[in-house]
Amino acid sequence: MVFEKETIDPAAQEMLQVAEEEGRETTWDLREQMEPQCGFGDTGVCCNICLQGPCRVNPNYNEKGNQKGICGARDYTIVARNLVRHTVGGTSSHSGHARHVAELFREVAEGHVDSYEVKDKEKLMKVADKLEIETEDRETNEIAKEVAEEAIGNFIGFHGEELSWLEPMVPESRYQIFNECNIIPTGINDAINEAMHRTAMGVDSDPLNLIFGNLQTALADFTGCTIGTDLSDIIFGTPEVVESEANLGVLDEDAVNVIVHGHEPVLSEKVVAAAKKLEDEAKEAGAENGINVAGICCTGNELLMRQGVPLATNFASQELAIMTGAVDAMVVDIQCIMPSIQSVANCYHTEIITTIPFSKISGAKHIEFNDSTADQDAEEIVRTAIEAYKERPKEINIPDYKSKLMAGFSFEEIENILSQVNEDDPLSVINDAIDEGDIKGICLFAGCNNTKVTHDKNHTEVAKGLVENDVLCVATGCVANALGKAGFMLPEAVEEYAGEGLKRFFSKLNEELGKELPLIWHMGSCVDNSRLIEFVTALANHKGVDIGEYPIVASAPEPMHEKAVSIGSWCVTIGLTTHVGVLPQITGSRLVTEVATKVAKDVYDGYFILESDPEAAVEELVAELDERTWVQDMKAKVLASDKYTTERY
Amino acid sequence: MVFEKETIDPAAQEMLQVAEEEGRETTWDLREQMEPQCGFGDTGVCCNICLQGPCRVNPNYNEKGNQKGICGARDYTIVARNLVRHTVGGTSSHSGHARHVAELFREVAEGHVDSYEVKDKEKLMKVADKLEIETEDRETNEIAKEVAEEAIGNFIGFHGEELSWLEPMVPESRYQIFNECNIIPTGINDAINEAMHRTAMGVDSDPLNLIFGNLQTALADFTGCTIGTDLSDIIFGTPEVVESEANLGVLDEDAVNVIVHGHEPVLSEKVVAAAKKLEDEAKEAGAENGINVAGICCTGNELLMRQGVPLATNFASQELAIMTGAVDAMVVDIQCIMPSIQSVANCYHTEIITTIPFSKISGAKHIEFNDSTADQDAEEIVRTAIEAYKERPKEINIPDYKSKLMAGFSFEEIENILSQVNEDDPLSVINDAIDEGDIKGICLFAGCNNTKVTHDKNHTEVAKGLVENDVLCVATGCVANALGKAGFMLPEAVEEYAGEGLKRFFSKLNEELGKELPLIWHMGSCVDNSRLIEFVTALANHKGVDIGEYPIVASAPEPMHEKAVSIGSWCVTIGLTTHVGVLPQITGSRLVTEVATKVAKDVYDGYFILESDPEAAVEELVAELDERTWVQDMKAKVLASDKYTTERY
Repeated sequence: MVFEKETIDPAAQEMLQVAEEEGRETTWDLREQMEPQCGFGDTGVCCNICLQGPCRVNPNYNEKGNQKGICGARDYTIVARNLVRHTVGGTSSHSGHARHVAELFREVAEGHVDSYEVKDKEKLMKVADKLEIETEDRETNEIAKEVAEEAIGNFIGFHGEELSWLEPMVPESRYQIFNECNIIPTGINDAINEAMHRTAMGVDSDPLNLIFGNLQTALADFTGCTIGTDLSDIIFGTPEVVESEANLGVLDEDAVNVIVHGHEPVLSEKVVAAAKKLEDEAKEAGAENGINVAGICCTGNELLMRQGVPLATNFASQELAIMTGAVDAMVVDIQCIMPSIQSVANCYHTEIITTIPFSKISGAKHIEFNDSTADQDAEEIVRTAIEAYKERPKEINIPDYKSKLMAGFSFEEIENILSQVNEDDPLSVINDAIDEGDIKGICLFAGCNNTKVTHDKNHTEVAKGLVENDVLCVATGCVANALGKAGFMLPEAVEEYAGEGLKRFFSKLNEELGKELPLIWHMGSCVDNSRLIEFVTALANHKGVDIGEYPIVASAPEPMHEKAVSIGSWCVTIGLTTHVGVLPQITGSRLVTEVATKVAKDVYDGYFILESDPEAAVEELVAELDERTWVQDMKAKVLASDKYTTERY
Repeated sequence: MVFEKETIDPAAQEMLQVAEEEGRETTWDLREQMEPQCGFGDTGVCCNICLQGPCRVNPNYNEKGNQKGICGARDYTIVARNLVRHTVGGTSSHSGHARHVAELFREVAEGHVDSYEVKDKEKLMKVADKLEIETEDRETNEIAKEVAEEAIGNFIGFHGEELSWLEPMVPESRYQIFNECNIIPTGINDAINEAMHRTAMGVDSDPLNLIFGNLQTALADFTGCTIGTDLSDIIFGTPEVVESEANLGVLDEDAVNVIVHGHEPVLSEKVVAAAKKLEDEAKEAGAENGINVAGICCTGNELLMRQGVPLATNFASQELAIMTGAVDAMVVDIQCIMPSIQSVANCYHTEIITTIPFSKISGAKHIEFNDSTADQDAEEIVRTAIEAYKERPKEINIPDYKSKLMAGFSFEEIENILSQVNEDDPLSVINDAIDEGDIKGICLFAGCNNTKVTHDKNHTEVAKGLVENDVLCVATGCVANALGKAGFMLPEAVEEYAGEGLKRFFSKLNEELGKELPLIWHMGSCVDNSRLIEFVTALANHKGVDIGEYPIVASAPEPMHEKAVSIGSWCVTIGLTTHVGVLPQITGSRLVTEVATKVAKDVYDGYFILESDPEAAVEELVAELDERTWVQDMKAKVLASDKYTTERY
């Protein structure tokens, strides 16, 4: 097949063919031109933190060569500092996303904006309870105000304070571990500041100290993600199971196609509303099917989860959407937006519309989005798309590929589903299935695309391998998008891909429910990885174990963004052994690599599996789940035995 | 002379000879091994912000080659993002320093610590006035509490808020420019978070937008510096003119030598006190001259300014201090501490003592410093030095070089001096001298050492050239240290180096004062660059012009740290044309370089002069001062003329 080195997505392959014919440059061409990539940077041993640099130290211990930067920094210091700064980039991204939601929520709570409201009171009460905010006999808005202040407090927390959002999110035993390691952040912004400071020239050079600093920053990231998810649910509703479609085939030749791309629901929810409102204007402009909104990246996931908006595609193939010639506007907010989309759009009628003041693209149209004028701004954006539609040339190339998918698996929705099976003890549905061996454990799929590997291939291969081995899989972000496009988020996929145990699990579940669940559960956007932690904390508490003892792993088969570094870091810290399918830039330091892949286990139970081969990754992930179950069983046996009483230890 | 390529400091040259004889590796050896440095990194066109990288784009527009990263990021996006992240590193460093002082100050204000107090009530009142905090009929501690809250507020300020510490520090006209450019930060931590977010993959790719973001971050840095200086003065006293000495010759063979190195006064002030207290213990241990405390980098500058503690040396030669064999302990806090000092110390009896939890060095002794147990911690540190002294081998090599110097030129002290000359109108002493042509203007020397150029050479050459051209020079940080070592901070230097005008200025001044002032005024540590802005704001207001119209420039002849990037950025934003003697990593983008060196002038009056040749730098700086005066004169003439009334424009 053509372009099978680039991508396994048939729609993307078809569009690459179009690109080639039309002489358009894509991100894959740019990758090819970039080869060979610099080995120092790739292994993390390039330091550009001070103006004496760049310093590049020899990553190979066995060969003669320079082992120190000009200041005397060794490979492990350089690698660890770069790692921390990547995690900071991730943390600032997630928390930047969450900050916008938190600010909006404060405005809503204080009654300063009309366009948004507290949509999900139940979730508000749940979050308030979690934060130990009094809810009885109080007005919704009073509670909302206190939750909002608490959220802002988690961003601005200062020395001597502690993040309130973190503790209730993990088992007590896990929080205890954080405490013992002294890695509980004071506040999200403060953690970012300290991490940048400690990695500046001549501050922290102790690699272990830096690594603990990395984990502290990562916990700030996790907290930001959680705040983002919780408050988005309150404002926009907690997701419930929805059906939709994914892949470029969702674009509609006879509609004004508006792609929302980036990460935030704040703007894109309004674009969806404006699209509905301006349907007639689109029809008047000649689009007989009105306006078709589709998503890319996590803005897409947010809208899919709550509104059933279809996914156009994921990260690596974002340029290809424009090359269909059918996209009238691509509205972007923050993160993962390739600067190249403007150069591509220049060859078409497509309007690239940036909306956030600190996230612009040279040459793109900027329509600033303000929470206080959200409806008007969204309408202006949609009208811009309608205007562009009028200029759309005849020739378009929409690939005829799309897959149905189901999404909406928030923790609350999962609880709701499980309680239909066992009202009194919903979580036992999962834990019993694990005990009975029907499912081997749970895997969270998270992360991006990375053109270092074939687009979507690692995602689907690892997923295939795990479900075949009876692992219950959930997914977020661009991997969720990939698995959706590839048909894994459908009930039919159970029969096609699941192992015998997993089949039994689904068959029992579906029978009890009277409806069919998809094989892999779409949990949302990248901040929504926090949903999985909420889920697994509940499961671990239910089982009476720590997360580190629970059969749970994570996999980022194609990580690209700094956000993947921070998510991976907190996954491991929270106790999830985490597979990474593209080598992170740490391998230049044996010490840092050993800590990440081995020593971490001693402290946090979780550790990193660095493995670019999907088959090998599956083996290691399954082995880890097996080991966790086996160790649990052994412990139970030992403790139950007469010979080995607990007193003896 | 031997080692004249490495350094012009005779003490350092002598020690490099010792290093060679003893086979010790120094930072200059490491630099040699690092050559050739990577041209991509050096010109800023290496991007490692996402895991698809490293991407290196061709910085040369005229040759065929790759001009885009894998995501489509152009050279200008990559360079601008890297620049912003450097500024973030600088901002987090200065504000990390200031944060510690602010936290301590809050503790002091609230009466939670015994070891520190409000030492300078006058400064407290001045700062309170600046912040429009009511001072009349209020207890000192009440005022202090409010100032402390305001300081913390500037760190944690969130969206919709504005830094209160920034506005009163610059002329109204300048704040107006900030406002028009929309670059006033909400809070220091928040600015750092947003800057990291906007530079993450797929967020801001518009270079101009990124550059404005850089300036916003830099203003947060400036605010952090100012808070650090103001609160340090309140707790430790506002500097007044002191006499002391500088260079390795200040080490005393017959004393326990304790070097304090890093940036904060919080710990080091206590070390000085503990040294006095434990004098007898040192004598009992055999050190007949007791304990000798000397400083390196800005910890040294802080102690010099307030306590007259001598300077051992500056950044590049820090390792050489240990190689004298006479340093019993080197106590470090944060920033500019070469990790290599531990490897050097391993060959001697010297104890390297780290004190800050997030700033450790593998192999060093860590004695954690807590504000609440400051006196005990400092005593433990000094006793560790005394113990090490007992193990000191006989052979030591203290170079017989040191220079006397004067320091302590806070803005308040300068005002005090000038008011002895003209009580009613102290600032006219400077402004009249400028009008009369005795002085051409003012130059702030700031910054580090950078082994890319000969140690201290650029510092002294640029300084020589400017004073010869009648420029009144003030200095902070490692350049102040260099100029102190080289004898510029003495009254005798006026005769030796100053031009005729500057000689007249000093001669009048000295006559009126009845005492002699040094040629170049030591203003303190790197956060103390804020003192110069306070000074020049007063001068500009006095003259009735904006800073951008005032004959003021800055020069960082040997910048190394990210802090130099942030200081340079805010100097230009505040209106100071700023010379940089080591090429910053922006030259890979013609656009960013043009903005920094040319376009910036249109918006901010200040711009960057990138010039590694000291002579050429002097020419350009002098030309800029001349131009400012000339333009002022022309404006005055035009406005005074009948023909050209203001109405006409």
